[in-house]
Amino acid sequence: MKEGGIGSEKIIRRQGDGELEYQPDDLTIEEPLEIRVGRNVLATTMRTPGHDEELAAGFLFSEGIVRKRDEIGNISMSNENAVIVDLAAGVKLKLNSAQRFGTISSSCGICGKSSIDAIRQNFPAIRSTTIRIETETLLSLPGRLREQQGDFARTGGIHAAGVFDLNGNTQIVREDIGRHNAVDKAIGRAFLDKRLPFDRHLLLVSGRASFEIMQKALAAGIPIVAAVSAPSTLAVNFARESNQTLIGFLRPPSFNIYSHIERVVLEQ
Amino acid sequence: MKEGGIGSEKIIRRQGDGELEYQPDDLTIEEPLEIRVGRNVLATTMRTPGHDEELAAGFLFSEGIVRKRDEIGNISMSNENAVIVDLAAGVKLKLNSAQRFGTISSSCGICGKSSIDAIRQNFPAIRSTTIRIETETLLSLPGRLREQQGDFARTGGIHAAGVFDLNGNTQIVREDIGRHNAVDKAIGRAFLDKRLPFDRHLLLVSGRASFEIMQKALAAGIPIVAAVSAPSTLAVNFARESNQTLIGFLRPPSFNIYSHIERVVLEQ
Repeated sequence: MKEGGIGSEKIIRRQGDGELEYQPDDLTIEEPLEIRVGRNVLATTMRTPGHDEELAAGFLFSEGIVRKRDEIGNISMSNENAVIVDLAAGVKLKLNSAQRFGTISSSCGICGKSSIDAIRQNFPAIRSTTIRIETETLLSLPGRLREQQGDFARTGGIHAAGVFDLNGNTQIVREDIGRHNAVDKAIGRAFLDKRLPFDRHLLLVSGRASFEIMQKALAAGIPIVAAVSAPSTLAVNFARESNQTLIGFLRPPSFNIYSHIERVVLEQ
Repeated sequence: MKEGGIGSEKIIRRQGDGELEYQPDDLTIEEPLEIRVGRNVLATTMRTPGHDEELAAGFLFSEGIVRKRDEIGNISMSNENAVIVDLAAGVKLKLNSAQRFGTISSSCGICGKSSIDAIRQNFPAIRSTTIRIETETLLSLPGRLREQQGDFARTGGIHAAGVFDLNGNTQIVREDIGRHNAVDKAIGRAFLDKRLPFDRHLLLVSGRASFEIMQKALAAGIPIVAAVSAPSTLAVNFARESNQTLIGFLRPPSFNIYSHIERVVLEQ
């Protein structure tokens, strides 16, 4: 049985007291999605169905394959597990070498030390240093994300990505079994609505912050990224060099700041 | 500063009482790894450095690209972020269509509904129905995994995969920032040591159970897979059809059984 991003199964549960119960359980749906541009299969990702057009748009945008909304003509589902992006008339598909050689991967994005430089050329470092977020606002965000996270409450097995303004107002929240997909969906929605760059915004992810999350945030122009769990070394290095503020272990009332602390108004 | 799979950074921590502290923090190292067979780049994955030869071997084995230890001649690091596998003399690289078309991805493995059938042809369903694990043994495994998980305790940001025998004895534990990489490393170690199939064993993963985890376990002949967090719908479907026992939310004293309950000795 499927409903939204959730499937229900009958399972056996061993309770804490040793009692066994045969009960329904809500599970996150995981299905492959092929992302095609015309006839080219650019990537296959395991994702939670729903918002697939946003996922495709966000993926193409954060890979630097499209820059502007008008470069995309049409997005449609070829079947339930394949989405086709048709570029606008006159727009040609340009792939970099990593993409041409088929090393694109949904868990990697654009890999390699040399390509980190390429990404920074592709997506310039954040320029603004004047924006700030209050500690109190920051601490309110995990709760606001959870409020919007219907599927997590039921399955305990789905990631969320939320974009907030600097007053803590929720702009977009998306859920997916893959953290990078949740971010692609959120950014893809904004891209399709011509709302980018999100240069006075914060991205909050429910899990860890990887290099790839930072790279997608940079593509969208987002100056502050917060994660409920740990960042990786590469995420921290990338954030420092890209002038992004990176906050980890955002678990009220505490958090860590890994880079560009100047954007957080700290009171002692 | 790097040490094993951990890097240390100075960060600002906001404590629960609002106090700020400038302190060192241990972070999980994330770096790209290119997996090459001869001159072919087969995949690029973001991984925690260390045990890279095992990762490459486990990846090639669970993708069905190599079947036997003797098909691999030599594995060496080309540079710190690229591993080269040389096949043994006379062994030719055979790629399926998904691999040839460059849709291999570390977060996807072999994707697509039609290829799920292909995987089952590639890796037959588990045959044994006679093996059993005691509830008490099962409940002891998360603790045993954590004991071996040095890096998690320090970073809070790394996945672990552990292989145990049916008495709960630890066989192999590997950690990585990517859950699939941790499994590839564990299975790759066993493959290189000619210890496969693991047909009287259990695989425990510290996070969620995705389709890909089940597929890698099946490749290694593992009949029971347990996860500390939630499985996905596709993982459950795959387990049912592959005659694999799938246990989720293994958090003593409780757990859920999603498929093939007959391998767990339940006492009430």
